[in-house]
Amino acid sequence: MSGAAGSRYDVLFEPLEIGPRTLPNRFYQVPYLPGFTASGRPRVSAAHRAVKAEGGWGAVCTEWCMVAPDADPAPEGASTLLDDADERNLASWCAQVQAHGALAGVELAHDGGNAGGELSRWPAIAPSQLRSDAWLFSEATPKAMERADIERVQAAWAAAAERAVRAGFDIVYVYGAASMLPMQFLSPFTNKRDDAYGGSFENRARFWLETLAAVSETVAGRAAVAARIGVDELGPSGIGVEEVTRLVGLADELVDLWDVNVGGLANSAMDLTPSRVFEEGYSLQWTARIKAATRKPLVTVGRLTNADLMADLVRQGKIDIVGAARPSIADPFLPRKVRAGRFEDIRECIGSNHCAVKATTGHLGCSQNATAGEEHRRGWHPERFAPLADPSRPVMVIGAGPAGLECAKVLGRRGAELVHVIDAAAEMGGHLSWFGRLPGFQPWLRLIDYRRTQIEKLPAVTFVPGTRLGPAEVLDYGAAVVVCATGSRWSADGVNLLTHEPIAGAGEGLPHVLTPEQIVLDGKRPPGPRVLVYDCEAYLTGLGIAQFLQAEGWVPTVVTPVHEAGAHAFHTGEGPVMRREIAAGGGRFAHGLRLEAVEPGGARLEDEFGAGVELEADAVVLVTQRLSEDGLYRELLADPGRLAAAGIEAVYRAGDCVAPRLLPDAVFDGHRLGREIDGPDPRWPLPLRPDDAPPPRYPDGPGAGIGREDLGLGAPPVAR
Amino acid sequence: MSGAAGSRYDVLFEPLEIGPRTLPNRFYQVPYLPGFTASGRPRVSAAHRAVKAEGGWGAVCTEWCMVAPDADPAPEGASTLLDDADERNLASWCAQVQAHGALAGVELAHDGGNAGGELSRWPAIAPSQLRSDAWLFSEATPKAMERADIERVQAAWAAAAERAVRAGFDIVYVYGAASMLPMQFLSPFTNKRDDAYGGSFENRARFWLETLAAVSETVAGRAAVAARIGVDELGPSGIGVEEVTRLVGLADELVDLWDVNVGGLANSAMDLTPSRVFEEGYSLQWTARIKAATRKPLVTVGRLTNADLMADLVRQGKIDIVGAARPSIADPFLPRKVRAGRFEDIRECIGSNHCAVKATTGHLGCSQNATAGEEHRRGWHPERFAPLADPSRPVMVIGAGPAGLECAKVLGRRGAELVHVIDAAAEMGGHLSWFGRLPGFQPWLRLIDYRRTQIEKLPAVTFVPGTRLGPAEVLDYGAAVVVCATGSRWSADGVNLLTHEPIAGAGEGLPHVLTPEQIVLDGKRPPGPRVLVYDCEAYLTGLGIAQFLQAEGWVPTVVTPVHEAGAHAFHTGEGPVMRREIAAGGGRFAHGLRLEAVEPGGARLEDEFGAGVELEADAVVLVTQRLSEDGLYRELLADPGRLAAAGIEAVYRAGDCVAPRLLPDAVFDGHRLGREIDGPDPRWPLPLRPDDAPPPRYPDGPGAGIGREDLGLGAPPVAR
Repeated sequence: MSGAAGSRYDVLFEPLEIGPRTLPNRFYQVPYLPGFTASGRPRVSAAHRAVKAEGGWGAVCTEWCMVAPDADPAPEGASTLLDDADERNLASWCAQVQAHGALAGVELAHDGGNAGGELSRWPAIAPSQLRSDAWLFSEATPKAMERADIERVQAAWAAAAERAVRAGFDIVYVYGAASMLPMQFLSPFTNKRDDAYGGSFENRARFWLETLAAVSETVAGRAAVAARIGVDELGPSGIGVEEVTRLVGLADELVDLWDVNVGGLANSAMDLTPSRVFEEGYSLQWTARIKAATRKPLVTVGRLTNADLMADLVRQGKIDIVGAARPSIADPFLPRKVRAGRFEDIRECIGSNHCAVKATTGHLGCSQNATAGEEHRRGWHPERFAPLADPSRPVMVIGAGPAGLECAKVLGRRGAELVHVIDAAAEMGGHLSWFGRLPGFQPWLRLIDYRRTQIEKLPAVTFVPGTRLGPAEVLDYGAAVVVCATGSRWSADGVNLLTHEPIAGAGEGLPHVLTPEQIVLDGKRPPGPRVLVYDCEAYLTGLGIAQFLQAEGWVPTVVTPVHEAGAHAFHTGEGPVMRREIAAGGGRFAHGLRLEAVEPGGARLEDEFGAGVELEADAVVLVTQRLSEDGLYRELLADPGRLAAAGIEAVYRAGDCVAPRLLPDAVFDGHRLGREIDGPDPRWPLPLRPDDAPPPRYPDGPGAGIGREDLGLGAPPVAR
Repeated sequence: MSGAAGSRYDVLFEPLEIGPRTLPNRFYQVPYLPGFTASGRPRVSAAHRAVKAEGGWGAVCTEWCMVAPDADPAPEGASTLLDDADERNLASWCAQVQAHGALAGVELAHDGGNAGGELSRWPAIAPSQLRSDAWLFSEATPKAMERADIERVQAAWAAAAERAVRAGFDIVYVYGAASMLPMQFLSPFTNKRDDAYGGSFENRARFWLETLAAVSETVAGRAAVAARIGVDELGPSGIGVEEVTRLVGLADELVDLWDVNVGGLANSAMDLTPSRVFEEGYSLQWTARIKAATRKPLVTVGRLTNADLMADLVRQGKIDIVGAARPSIADPFLPRKVRAGRFEDIRECIGSNHCAVKATTGHLGCSQNATAGEEHRRGWHPERFAPLADPSRPVMVIGAGPAGLECAKVLGRRGAELVHVIDAAAEMGGHLSWFGRLPGFQPWLRLIDYRRTQIEKLPAVTFVPGTRLGPAEVLDYGAAVVVCATGSRWSADGVNLLTHEPIAGAGEGLPHVLTPEQIVLDGKRPPGPRVLVYDCEAYLTGLGIAQFLQAEGWVPTVVTPVHEAGAHAFHTGEGPVMRREIAAGGGRFAHGLRLEAVEPGGARLEDEFGAGVELEADAVVLVTQRLSEDGLYRELLADPGRLAAAGIEAVYRAGDCVAPRLLPDAVFDGHRLGREIDGPDPRWPLPLRPDDAPPPRYPDGPGAGIGREDLGLGAPPVAR
């Protein structure tokens, strides 16, 4: 491989022996769950993973792939490698990934006592009969494994490894991170056995070593054997770095590659590492210990998104291989862009962790990359775009927030000859222009930075700042197509999901009633120190505003009608940390209370049982629900004759202006409109391609100069 | 159809015209979500539904079947009828159900503002831009529907109806219950529109009427048109019976069948009706209003399980058709058993609602019927069993709880010649013997009643009460096969999921530390009035024990480390009501606290932020985790030579003795062992048949006299 980048990054493109295989470079897509699985929906999965291989990742791995029926992570989907059908599906997956020159890895796993058993109806098994600390909503208690269970699972692991080799995999895992079964044996927290598999370190390590030996013996040099291990589970309960390092020393001869991360399942935020809480590469402090204990190559993660840091780490020998899940979702072409020296074109992961939540609730989504998960079902390639049917139609995009910018960028890539992005504000950003100023959320602004850079590179796309347009100005602007991407705002009178009505005593213009935008954008401040933040969103806004005000000296109480302020941010990882910080600063919390009325000096609330609660407060911040800023759109559509007379062929809208939603969904919406704006009816998404349809044929066209050659690509691979 | 039953029940077997179709009797399986869908896994679904048709249900319906991509109920699975593949799959489903003589119904639906959009990535749509009150964990806010959305959805409904007719359905729905889109238009809570679809009753009813008209016109007499409607949403927020009755009057000419229930999505417990809280048929008070407003047939639900009540209701004209979801899961052969006068053989639904929760977390399960959802993948028929390979081996089942009784019953049905079920207690029941004594849980004892009756009818199966056996007695008993079903007990020293260690100050024998069994079975009582119940289970036991004690005058405080006492019972429906009752009786709650130590006179706890909390209490009840009672099993297995010498060929275990779990899973485990006890290795479940395998061939053998003839069945249908 050769390219434009200087020697600084060459170290990232040196091949490396991993047992019997050669990793072509130092970029390695570690396992993650995308919601669809390689064994269950092989074509959807393969298309998603294959663009990473095409984008230069030297190795691409499956998600968790379960070796036995009692490894049942429902409701989170995982692959399985249990029967001939699984083997066939994974063989097809393998071939599609390998067609681009990457190594294919399979994450053989058993989740032991953390299994839900909801699909298989087998009981969970664990070293000892102790309930999982990771799932608090299941009544299930595991079976304490008998010797027969140990033998059965190890035989199953070997059998799955044999199937994996036959399916064509280059790398076969014994997966022990995320508090999986091998780790449950190693940890005295989960292992209280008094037989040969419990007690002393040697006994607790036995399951790891025997399983690795069984897999190594089965694979017999036909593939590399990798072990993924949590360096430190960091809980009060998990296994620590000392014993993990000792295990690595003992097992080193059985392993061709160590894949290490931090955190266990009960404190998965340590592995999820939202950018709000963790710096890039934070886990390297632990990784160094493992590096010193092994003679084998080491790959690690930690939301590594910066190519300079990656190159430094490899050059300094701190790691051998750059592991990535989220950065590879945000930009599947990251390696090739580094190779080509096109750093400004990299979509750096913003660390919002929507990907992880979306994968468990249905289907992957990414704030930075709207095409993630859409490769097969919509035929979207992250870097290739079909030319517009009619590039000459002038387009005006009103609103330079995430959706508007994404739509304009896609139109530019598709060869639109004239696109104006117009915003009332002086800068691009939309709602991120205030959300990104909440403490710690600056990394989210990468989403705007990337799009600004891309738009600046597209001569046909122009940003017009500081311009608020009414319907008359839009009609006069000279556009053939209008896209309203005017966003949304928080309700000023407290319209909320519980009553669908304003809250008594709230309303525009009162000094003691505030909204998030008024605080951050307009500089409005509470009239006294005690602030009640009413969090009906139960995601980041209430906690973020509380911290914003707290940093200036106000004393917040965050009240929510649900069970926990920022409840949704438990799943993305910020919630527990932000709550702890607020509490440490003297802030307070109350849950299960609905706000009935705002009064000067206080608020009237009601608990689950209908009892009234009075809270004193100098002001109330309403975080109840957002409302689309769709006035302009509605005014334009009200008079079709006037539109026609002005030469406007179509008015569309995108993002929060349609429906306020999560960031990745707003970006998705702008992207979709850009991709489908010349389709039969661009108001609605095109139908999805069926799971069993042939692999997608991506457009070969260059868009605006971002073609295959720019990426150092050869001829497109033949679809299988 | 003819049978042994007297005239009292004949009314239930009279045919009824439903538009152009004839319902063969008055038993109607209404829609419910089983976790697998008719369009996505047609063979799994069809096998599950077809046994109901075989069992005599006159109509069998699909689950929700969505008409447009923005009707996206993820993460709960629903069918779709959007494309040719869906139509093919549903045609195959239809044929399998109709092969048994039942009508097939399809529940065409759109969930509007309650849609998650996680799979489709379309925004939810609703009459007005108001967040759903049903889902508190999504940041998404719906799009306020434009006229184009209304037209699109109505056209989609008609298109899906056309596909439904082509697929062969007899009954096509406009589904408006469960706060679905038509109801969102009718309700002023969700509809704040100021156009022709909002405001006056006539305007709010417009969407219902237009959609019904579009479907009716499309179907054009080729199938019956049904409407499902929530009679009263009963919330502070939903639509009430007055306006629903008015709508029924207006729409009556467009509809061939009214299917009515109670409750909306935000208060789904009113539709789920756990037996703990609601009596059988509680919804009939509302249904009567609808019956008076329509000239069309009416079907309703309400956990109707008693054949006498069913017959009375139909004879008195209160309803025309008996609707059932749960009762049809608990006993797919309920109609035929009524017809045959075999009432004692009916597995009456116990109303635990595990079915509903399991359907959303992965795969259906039922406390009464272990075969529910296992028809295709395990080839299990609810009434037909393959004869044992060697019926002469004497079997002893130790433990007469749910798992042991179920195992013995299955062995008896399979023709075992000698089975003893032995228990230390004087009565059958296992853990239900104490759990069933908690206030309001008596209906759960139906699970034991049914099995007692069945075992009494099996001459080869004998219950041996009051007999506690040690290993020596087991060896001497003369059995060839031993099944340990000895259950589990609550930890007496507070071993728990957070620490995996006992709680300081707890332990056996202390007067101020109690377990659930000690209280209910042994009569142990707290030494003073104030009782702290530590609920780490977060299901029913903590709340139930609190109510048990409260009824006797103790004053409980229920403390839980999770967000809510009885959190899991939110999903099954009992939790909110039980908490309200406890609070009304003066009980208190504290959440997010972990118990650090029990001290005389109080307890030391810690909150989320590590702050200490002291609570005064005269006693602490520990509901932390259960431990298998597996001592006997382990002692028996410890000396294989001794077993061989005693002529014992195998020792197995089943139920909580393996791993403490939910009731349906314990019953499943006993059933499975009975079905597979002569398989290659009965310790582990046999592999599942793939989704795309041919339909199952059930055993034709009679078991112990429960054959096809008994059920009034003809020749088995030909598998397609």
